[in-house]
Amino acid sequence: MKQIIAIIKPFLADKVLSELEHAPLEALQVHSVKGFGRQKNYLDQYAESDYSRAFLPKVEIRMWVEDSRVEEVLATVNLAARTGRIGDGKIFVVPVVRHESLINF
Amino acid sequence: MKQIIAIIKPFLADKVLSELEHAPLEALQVHSVKGFGRQKNYLDQYAESDYSRAFLPKVEIRMWVEDSRVEEVLATVNLAARTGRIGDGKIFVVPVVRHESLINF
Amino acid sequence: MKQIIAIIKPFLADKVLSELEHAPLEALQVHSVKGFGRQKNYLDQYAESDYSRAFLPKVEIRMWVEDSRVEEVLATVNLAARTGRIGDGKIFVVPVVRHESLINF
Repeated sequence: MKQIIAIIKPFLADKVLSELEHAPLEALQVHSVKGFGRQKNYLDQYAESDYSRAFLPKVEIRMWVEDSRVEEVLATVNLAARTGRIGDGKIFVVPVVRHESLINF
Repeated sequence: MKQIIAIIKPFLADKVLSELEHAPLEALQVHSVKGFGRQKNYLDQYAESDYSRAFLPKVEIRMWVEDSRVEEVLATVNLAARTGRIGDGKIFVVPVVRHESLINF
Repeated sequence: MKQIIAIIKPFLADKVLSELEHAPLEALQVHSVKGFGRQKNYLDQYAESDYSRAFLPKVEIRMWVEDSRVEEVLATVNLAARTGRIGDGKIFVVPVVRHESLINF
């Protein structure tokens, strides 16, 4: 099992969630987050003195997925969240060493 | 060290936190989250056209625990959070490769 | 790549973020969290009957960092966030097995 963390543009969140509706996920969470990635450097050329402007609202979709379905879920997220512009977001995959459904524990 | 992520029913959060009060935790956080698990499929039979209804409020308890105490903490969470019904929630365990207390760093 | 999770005192968050402004981060998020660490035990001596008092507001800074830059980022966070008192906070490092920028996917 893996945890997939997708940090995407908020206006694309509904589209991504809709595409994930039939994806093979064990669980999914949606979070509004404040963050920045590498695009901070570009923004800083115009707003170097105002640190808070570097922060951008993002939506984080956190998914738990069986190892064999990770590639499929990554492809689904990418297809829905990618616009080809700076700030499109990132995907990180974290290992899960154990998981239990409470109902079966 | 491991990170234990328990996603449980909100009405059981106080009970679980109370049971964890004397558990061997390095740190603990509580978060309100929007998510869904496999029970989404059942709900969708009744509310297929309203995507937002598939999201259910959950409480996520995130714990950092020494390797040797993981089983004990998992058992405590399970005993307090399990009702035996669909949607009881899930537990995920993520490896931690390094940890520091700032006071000792 | 690693995920670095720093849980620090809220009044030091601006200082830590400012020190991280030129750090070699792939991405960064800031979250307000409710949590407790080992200092809970000390607080409980005075407020044993009021469980909610044991919870303290913290700021969690979540960073994604290339393996070769982890030590540098840990040192930066520590230098800015450490006061030497109980409750200074903690740092956890979680492995990332894969990462993608959506723009390059």
